[in-house]
Amino acid sequence: MPQIDPDAIRQGDRLNLSRALTAVENGTPEGQKLESALFPYSGHAHLIGMTGAPGTGKSTLVNQLVKLLRQTNDENPAPKIAIIAVDPTSPFTGGALLGDRIRMQALAGDKGVFIRSMASRGTLGGIAQNTAAFATILDSAGFDIILVETIGAGQAEVEISRLAHTVVVVDAPGLGDGIQAIKAGILEIADILVVNKADRPGADNTANTLQAMLEMGQNSQGKLFTLGKHLRDDLPGEAFYVPIEQPGWKTPILKTIASEGKGVEGLINAIQCHRSFLVTSCLWEQKETQRLRYALEALIKDKLVHRWQQNLDEDKFESVIADLIQRKISPIDAASELM
Amino acid sequence: MPQIDPDAIRQGDRLNLSRALTAVENGTPEGQKLESALFPYSGHAHLIGMTGAPGTGKSTLVNQLVKLLRQTNDENPAPKIAIIAVDPTSPFTGGALLGDRIRMQALAGDKGVFIRSMASRGTLGGIAQNTAAFATILDSAGFDIILVETIGAGQAEVEISRLAHTVVVVDAPGLGDGIQAIKAGILEIADILVVNKADRPGADNTANTLQAMLEMGQNSQGKLFTLGKHLRDDLPGEAFYVPIEQPGWKTPILKTIASEGKGVEGLINAIQCHRSFLVTSCLWEQKETQRLRYALEALIKDKLVHRWQQNLDEDKFESVIADLIQRKISPIDAASELM
Repeated sequence: MPQIDPDAIRQGDRLNLSRALTAVENGTPEGQKLESALFPYSGHAHLIGMTGAPGTGKSTLVNQLVKLLRQTNDENPAPKIAIIAVDPTSPFTGGALLGDRIRMQALAGDKGVFIRSMASRGTLGGIAQNTAAFATILDSAGFDIILVETIGAGQAEVEISRLAHTVVVVDAPGLGDGIQAIKAGILEIADILVVNKADRPGADNTANTLQAMLEMGQNSQGKLFTLGKHLRDDLPGEAFYVPIEQPGWKTPILKTIASEGKGVEGLINAIQCHRSFLVTSCLWEQKETQRLRYALEALIKDKLVHRWQQNLDEDKFESVIADLIQRKISPIDAASELM
Repeated sequence: MPQIDPDAIRQGDRLNLSRALTAVENGTPEGQKLESALFPYSGHAHLIGMTGAPGTGKSTLVNQLVKLLRQTNDENPAPKIAIIAVDPTSPFTGGALLGDRIRMQALAGDKGVFIRSMASRGTLGGIAQNTAAFATILDSAGFDIILVETIGAGQAEVEISRLAHTVVVVDAPGLGDGIQAIKAGILEIADILVVNKADRPGADNTANTLQAMLEMGQNSQGKLFTLGKHLRDDLPGEAFYVPIEQPGWKTPILKTIASEGKGVEGLINAIQCHRSFLVTSCLWEQKETQRLRYALEALIKDKLVHRWQQNLDEDKFESVIADLIQRKISPIDAASELM
C-alpha cells in the first residue's frame, strides 16, 4: 500500500482522498495521522446535515440540491460539494454500496462532486467520530459544502447533526404514526424543515403539524436550554453538550417536490440564508466551537475506555463477571470493583 | 417523596414499581440503590426485543401478542407481562405519553400487564443502560415476560436488542427503499422475522427477500463472527461484544395480520420455541452472561467518563479548546493532552 500524501489531498487528488477516508474508517494509525496533518487546513466548509425518516425522498432531494448548486452562473462559481452518506445498513449486506451506485449515476461525471458512503455499523470508532474526521479531511481538500446525509432518525442522527452548521430535516405527507413519532425527536435539531413530496395529499396538513410542533418547541425553549445545562452537569454520556439557541432565526418550513426539482431553489436560498445568519450573528463560531468540543469529548471517551481495557486484569474481570452471573454482586458494585 | 420499598416491588406493588422506574430514569442515587437491591432477585424473566422500522404495525402486533399470551388456559397460567416501550421522541413534544395512552386503552384493566414508556432522549444515563435497569427491576417484580419495544432502527435498537434473549424483527410489504436499507441493518440480530400486514400486496415478495438476505447472512456467518472478534479486540466502543452464534436455530419467517389477530399464535409458538431452544442448548446462559457483561461495560464506560470529568481542570480544558479552535492543535493531540 503506497503512503497517502496529505499535500496531494489538499490539491484535490481523489485517489489519495479516497484512501485517506478508508484509512480513517478502518481506524488505522495512518488515518489518525492524516486527520491531524490536515486539521490545520480545515474550518472553511459549510457542513450541512440532511436528515429525515425513511420514505421522505431525502436522497432524491439531496441529488437535486447538489445538481442545482453546481449550476450556478459565472459570477458565482459553483461550490465544490462532498456528500457523506451515512448508511445504517449492515456491512455484510452491502447496502452502502447500492446507495452509492444509484447516486453515482445521477451525479456522474461532475468533477466538483465527491460522494462517499459510510456504513454506520462495523466501522472502527463511532459513526459521529468518523463523520467528523471525514469532514475535516474533505474540508482540507477544498470542498466548500459538505453534505452529511443520514437515513433514519435515532441517537446517531442527532449526534451527526451536532457536527453540522445547518441541519435540514426532511418530512413528507402520509408516512404514518411511527414516522410522526420519530419526526418529533429530530424536530428540535432542525434549522430548516422541508415537506417533500408536496404534491401528495396531506402536504398542507403535514406542514401545519410541523408548524404547531415547532411553536410548541419554541415556547418551551427555555426548558430545552435548561435540559442542556442539566446534561452538561450530570450526564457523562452527553458531557458539555448545550444546545445553541439561535435568537433571531425562525425555522422555515419549505415545500418541495424533489422528483420534479420543484422548490429546490427555495431550499438553497434557505440554506444560504441560514449560513449568513450564523456568520452575522457570530453563531458560526459558536457552532464551530461546539462541534470541536463535541468531537474532542467523543475522542476522549473512546481513549478512556481503551486505556482502561489495556490495563484490565482479565482474570479479575472474568471472576467479577462470574459473581455477577450468580447474582452475588450487583452491576454497580461490579463496576466499582473493576475500576 | 416517600422512600421506595424494594420488598413492596417484589410483592407486586405498582406504585412502588413505577416510582422505582422513575428513579432509575432520573438517574437518582435511590434508583441505583434499588437496582442493586433488586438485582439478586432478577434473572427469571424472558426478555423479548421487538423491533422494526416505522410503519410495520409493530405496536399493534405487540398488543395482540400480549392479549393472546394473557388468554392462556387453566393448565398454563397466563404469564405476567411488562412492556417497555422505548420511544425515540423528544421529551418536550410528549410523544411517549401519547403512545402510552393508546396502549392503555387496548390493554386497560388487565392487572397482569404493566406498560411503561421510556423517552430515548433526555433521560439521564444511556437508553440501553436504563432499559437494562428497567428489566432488572421488572424481573424482580415477578414479570415472566418483559417485552422491550423500540421504534425505528439504529444503533440504539441494536444495543437494546443485545439485552434480549429473543429478538423479533417486524417487517411489512411496501415500505420503500429507505426502510429496506434499515431492515438490512437489523436483520442479523433477528431470532424471529415477522412480515406483518401480510394481506397487503407484495407480502410474499417481502418474505422472499428476507429469506434471501437471511441466507446471505448465514452463509457469511463465519465472517460476521470474525467481525465480532475484531470488535472485541480493537473497538473501545464495542468492547467485548461478540455475537452469539446459534447453531441449530434457523430464523423462521412468519406472516401476520396484526390488525385482525391473524398469525399471532404462530408468533407465540415461535417465541416459546426459541426460548426452549436457548434453554436446551445452554445458549440461555450464554446470552445471560453476554447481557450482564454488556450492561457492566456500559456502566464502566459511563463511570470512566464521569471520573475523568470530575478530575478535569476546567481552565486547562478551555485553553486546549481555544487552541483547537485556532487549529494550533489537532483533536487527537488535544485529547492526549487532556488525559
